[in-house]
Amino acid sequence: MSHRIRLGMVGGGSGAFIGGVHRIAARLDDRFELRAGALASTPERARESGAALGLPADRVYDDFKAMAIREARLKDGIEAVAIVTPNHMHYPAAREFLKRGIHVICDKPLTATMADAKKLARAAEQSDALFILTHNYTAYPMIRHARAMVAGGELGALRLVQVEYAQDWLAEPMEEKGLKQAGWRTDPAQSGGGGSIGDIGTHAFNLAGFVSGLSVDALAADLHSFVPGRRLDDNAHVMLRYAGGARGTLWCSQVAVGCENGLRLRIYGEMGGLEWPQEEPNHLWFTPLGEPTRRITRNGPGTGPEAARFSRIPPGHPEGYLEGFANLYGEAAEAIRAAQAGTAPPPELHYPGVQDGMAGMAFIDACLRSSKRDGAWVKLA
Amino acid sequence: MSHRIRLGMVGGGSGAFIGGVHRIAARLDDRFELRAGALASTPERARESGAALGLPADRVYDDFKAMAIREARLKDGIEAVAIVTPNHMHYPAAREFLKRGIHVICDKPLTATMADAKKLARAAEQSDALFILTHNYTAYPMIRHARAMVAGGELGALRLVQVEYAQDWLAEPMEEKGLKQAGWRTDPAQSGGGGSIGDIGTHAFNLAGFVSGLSVDALAADLHSFVPGRRLDDNAHVMLRYAGGARGTLWCSQVAVGCENGLRLRIYGEMGGLEWPQEEPNHLWFTPLGEPTRRITRNGPGTGPEAARFSRIPPGHPEGYLEGFANLYGEAAEAIRAAQAGTAPPPELHYPGVQDGMAGMAFIDACLRSSKRDGAWVKLA
Amino acid sequence: MSHRIRLGMVGGGSGAFIGGVHRIAARLDDRFELRAGALASTPERARESGAALGLPADRVYDDFKAMAIREARLKDGIEAVAIVTPNHMHYPAAREFLKRGIHVICDKPLTATMADAKKLARAAEQSDALFILTHNYTAYPMIRHARAMVAGGELGALRLVQVEYAQDWLAEPMEEKGLKQAGWRTDPAQSGGGGSIGDIGTHAFNLAGFVSGLSVDALAADLHSFVPGRRLDDNAHVMLRYAGGARGTLWCSQVAVGCENGLRLRIYGEMGGLEWPQEEPNHLWFTPLGEPTRRITRNGPGTGPEAARFSRIPPGHPEGYLEGFANLYGEAAEAIRAAQAGTAPPPELHYPGVQDGMAGMAFIDACLRSSKRDGAWVKLA
Amino acid sequence: MSHRIRLGMVGGGSGAFIGGVHRIAARLDDRFELRAGALASTPERARESGAALGLPADRVYDDFKAMAIREARLKDGIEAVAIVTPNHMHYPAAREFLKRGIHVICDKPLTATMADAKKLARAAEQSDALFILTHNYTAYPMIRHARAMVAGGELGALRLVQVEYAQDWLAEPMEEKGLKQAGWRTDPAQSGGGGSIGDIGTHAFNLAGFVSGLSVDALAADLHSFVPGRRLDDNAHVMLRYAGGARGTLWCSQVAVGCENGLRLRIYGEMGGLEWPQEEPNHLWFTPLGEPTRRITRNGPGTGPEAARFSRIPPGHPEGYLEGFANLYGEAAEAIRAAQAGTAPPPELHYPGVQDGMAGMAFIDACLRSSKRDGAWVKLA
Repeated sequence: MSHRIRLGMVGGGSGAFIGGVHRIAARLDDRFELRAGALASTPERARESGAALGLPADRVYDDFKAMAIREARLKDGIEAVAIVTPNHMHYPAAREFLKRGIHVICDKPLTATMADAKKLARAAEQSDALFILTHNYTAYPMIRHARAMVAGGELGALRLVQVEYAQDWLAEPMEEKGLKQAGWRTDPAQSGGGGSIGDIGTHAFNLAGFVSGLSVDALAADLHSFVPGRRLDDNAHVMLRYAGGARGTLWCSQVAVGCENGLRLRIYGEMGGLEWPQEEPNHLWFTPLGEPTRRITRNGPGTGPEAARFSRIPPGHPEGYLEGFANLYGEAAEAIRAAQAGTAPPPELHYPGVQDGMAGMAFIDACLRSSKRDGAWVKLA
Repeated sequence: MSHRIRLGMVGGGSGAFIGGVHRIAARLDDRFELRAGALASTPERARESGAALGLPADRVYDDFKAMAIREARLKDGIEAVAIVTPNHMHYPAAREFLKRGIHVICDKPLTATMADAKKLARAAEQSDALFILTHNYTAYPMIRHARAMVAGGELGALRLVQVEYAQDWLAEPMEEKGLKQAGWRTDPAQSGGGGSIGDIGTHAFNLAGFVSGLSVDALAADLHSFVPGRRLDDNAHVMLRYAGGARGTLWCSQVAVGCENGLRLRIYGEMGGLEWPQEEPNHLWFTPLGEPTRRITRNGPGTGPEAARFSRIPPGHPEGYLEGFANLYGEAAEAIRAAQAGTAPPPELHYPGVQDGMAGMAFIDACLRSSKRDGAWVKLA
Repeated sequence: MSHRIRLGMVGGGSGAFIGGVHRIAARLDDRFELRAGALASTPERARESGAALGLPADRVYDDFKAMAIREARLKDGIEAVAIVTPNHMHYPAAREFLKRGIHVICDKPLTATMADAKKLARAAEQSDALFILTHNYTAYPMIRHARAMVAGGELGALRLVQVEYAQDWLAEPMEEKGLKQAGWRTDPAQSGGGGSIGDIGTHAFNLAGFVSGLSVDALAADLHSFVPGRRLDDNAHVMLRYAGGARGTLWCSQVAVGCENGLRLRIYGEMGGLEWPQEEPNHLWFTPLGEPTRRITRNGPGTGPEAARFSRIPPGHPEGYLEGFANLYGEAAEAIRAAQAGTAPPPELHYPGVQDGMAGMAFIDACLRSSKRDGAWVKLA
Repeated sequence: MSHRIRLGMVGGGSGAFIGGVHRIAARLDDRFELRAGALASTPERARESGAALGLPADRVYDDFKAMAIREARLKDGIEAVAIVTPNHMHYPAAREFLKRGIHVICDKPLTATMADAKKLARAAEQSDALFILTHNYTAYPMIRHARAMVAGGELGALRLVQVEYAQDWLAEPMEEKGLKQAGWRTDPAQSGGGGSIGDIGTHAFNLAGFVSGLSVDALAADLHSFVPGRRLDDNAHVMLRYAGGARGTLWCSQVAVGCENGLRLRIYGEMGGLEWPQEEPNHLWFTPLGEPTRRITRNGPGTGPEAARFSRIPPGHPEGYLEGFANLYGEAAEAIRAAQAGTAPPPELHYPGVQDGMAGMAFIDACLRSSKRDGAWVKLA
């Protein structure tokens, strides 16, 4: 077995944002090697993009199906594929690889529609290949430490989960100004029924559940689109009721001027409180009831194996978004190698999978249902 | 006319928190002088408290009605009274002074019940005396500057108002441990139907409206009490729809471990965003669309007359809660002197009055109604 | 004995900054009452200023000597006097009151010249009256807590004391633009030989010693004036060697653009480190060796009697510069009352006195000597 | 020409810190490929380390000289080598590669001794190969933006440069506890005459000069070792005089408890001030004289091509230490490719080279000379 996992990519041609992120994340710890790609929707752009990445011409494909078929047959064909297209392509692409036993690392949200999501879930179930969903924020070291603290009872029984994800890059009608990133994200055909709620709300929802260990029982949502002409929500206010009695709110916005990537999670229990701001991800703020607040630093005093495993360098040397993303790729690599070896995956792996993707879809769906019913409480399916 | 306004106080005996704050606020700028008091509910404690404050024995009263009657007759009787009792005493006390032409400076919320609120509003209307409600956060210099910025159009049309007020001092059942402050605040008979929503939610609601200039049209609320046995809400999640189309959320909590007095206001418009954290009140964060965020400091570059009027010392020399409270007393003094002189009050005064108090009561009432109807949207009366 | 101490003031007429601060500080806790003043250097301005403050005309004086003489004879004459003039007037004014048994609360630095300082020290020694020097930063609650922590050994043996005090208000030649505050501070005749080093460097020096409990043995200084035409230093770099082996640096500047009142103290010992930023004075940052950093809040968890004694309101409700200044007045009041009663002052008092003033003068003197000798190490006299 | 530059490595075997950083930095943007290594000082550890990195056995060498000789002859031999050994090995290793035309990317400080530094400078001069010194902090995007702002005159004529670099990992005698990183750094034979001043002081010195564009004319230093038995300084206070009249201080420490990697640069000019904290590297704080402070974010509003070129992802998605290091590798790649093509390197490259290394050695040397002369001002050679 070679040192690196052979990786293919669907989407992520020139001009894309997240494709480049996946490539860096895959490369950062030297666990993957990009070997093939169906990088764009037109043959020319696919070839240009492949060449720009140094891929050999015979491993650059015009479409993902052709790639899946041929790579599955090659002796040194790809072992895993990263799917980094707009949402509506996730299912059709993932299906082709899953059914040929090629592991799938797929961008979130799971799909554009619930119907597709169910089909994808079934495809994943029926395949021996793994399905990893890149809710990348779950793989920040301090998030893993926070999760371990909650699971270890350091906060006591949880009462409140407050999560927000505020951006401002869609404060103006960027989709009308030709910004590609804005175009598909505000197009129901490509994104599905959720705008901000699908693009970033699902991240916030997933992260809150990941750290708290709680599942949402019901929610009441107020979705809105502030920019005239926009077809999908660019702001959402959501009240949450968790199974077991905790409550919370989720706010996501793409029109909050001054917010760049303002994902922030706060969790309060009977015995303590936690706060983590994504924009300063190397710090976790913890207050034990009746004691001063502590600033816990990545890989610093008071952290344990969860943070250490995901830290490359000492505290004070900031790691960030790309390293967090790479941590998820690291877990994917470990899981894939275990699957190939037929052994159990290491117990410390916690990458999100298809069930997390289904939960995210249920969240989008519930938000849309609640909002249509003027914010009535609805159960998560 | 003397240099200082002669002030009486109802409530605020030893052991109280807010009474001492009012006294410092009244004294700080030398515009008031405490001359009389009905400081406690028992004659002994009233006398002890009066003596401790250096009041002459004949100006210390067993009850507020006696004080109102006698002081109104004295040549050097009090010109104004501060009412700093639990909520249910606001109306009975205020009535006695208002009807005798003594100006009233009253703690929030307006009253414990809507019925009392309406009577108090009528009493205030029928009196020549002024009624000032101490929503003290409105008088922080940077809040005044923020208000002026919004009014001046620097944020463009508003879209979002996010306000939160999180504390943790009621994370445990302090009312059962004999903490007086906790006792009356969690007692419906003394506080009214709102717990955290009345105690701090009204502050957040008032501040959001004060700065944004917007009024809430409808809200959906989820009130909850996390501490077993507690009779009033200690946490509230509220979604807001403002007249004119802006939306927002209000979160208040008294069980969020690690939060001391976490009042924070964020306002986003088409052209800019603002953030103000009460715990670092000398800074206002402003982002014009497409430009870097600016840290505007109290009385520093870029501030105007609103902040300057309320600043005693240069930027970098922090002013805080007591100074903010004193600013409101300063406005009260100016308004009282104008009323006494029969002249119009200076146009820059913006102290909250009985209408703001009524709005706060409507907010509490709407929260209670909505929460009982499982978070349905309800109109503010 | 009355409730309040009768206070006079020398200097502090209209247009002055620090006079107003002293008056608020004296009034805030109701321990003092301004009864007389020699507020300005010309009779007219003295009278106008007196009237503006509501002083009766017969207690407004044209000069401080007349005030000292008459007030000492009055039955209800002042018990204490605040001296808030430019530095060169401190000694002549203080002398008149000290020799008549009137307690002196005097602004820093002690005097403009070392000769005057020695005379003032002698006058203070020979008087029964107290001399309190308003190094106000020593009276912030978190500074008292920090001092107690160091004294209690929580940092272990100290190694490093890093203190800085950076401002920017003299980045331009404000003294040529008619700013009164700038005028006398850059005039050797009124200020003495030290510019920034006297005005703010002495504060930093004093605070470092106050908290660390260490005394400087020797220093090496590089004083400089950046603004063309300025007659006194507007920036100073100083290396410090403390008795006992600790080392440190002191930087003060009045030309550091973007710094408002950037006094910041950091102390490092074998077992822990402390940081306190004056501009956010309600927080003290403490790191025990090998543990996460803690944010200790004023009057919050983990603080003791030193902070509690100087806190009026709960944590999260910011107190600031004026409250810190008032704390010093509070200690003055307690010391004065004890002196009047002939009893020992309470042991918890730590206000700076004439010896601290002498130390500050020795610091200025050493800086000037070292700088003239091109930064050679010089002993503090 | 292949897509990636073939890279060798000297040092960086298992247990090392900086070797892993170089490998990630080289890989992150896919411009380099590790092909050979002399990774450790014993043959076994060298082989183990090589195997762990997936190097073929015939490209793993027992010593760097053998590697240089053989790789220079191979058709696909390495084009560049990263030298990540303790300081005393920099020169002997670099020499072998430089004289064979293999580009050198070398860790700082340049060498352990001035004699070696001169020899290395000569070797670099005589070689056609490039020499890149990894003062990695120069390649943070906001540092490049700061440099451009200063060069563009946005701060006006500079007055002050305040730089500090505080850590705490040597607060205890870690070298006696078997920590390898501490061992060689506190050993004069391996590190040279400077302890903290060489390890981190040179970074601070270099960064200050890089951004300010100023060169130090003279300095006065107070070096000290606080930990008993330590053979090299673990703390240094340095006063700086820049050519042209600016002044500054440099503080570096490895015993400041609570400081992790506290590199912080502040620069003040006549027209503005800048502050950059390495631990939150995505923000640059800029104050134009008389205006509010701005928080400039990496790749955000107000930044130009310098920051954009070094940003992989949008603002709000934090990049950190590894990305900064990778930026330097990116410049190395561009310079190497230009050298191989015989073309001029792109004008925007600003990687530190042998002259910067010589300046750092002169700084260490001056600090040692000054400190021996009790802090006398000494010229930089």
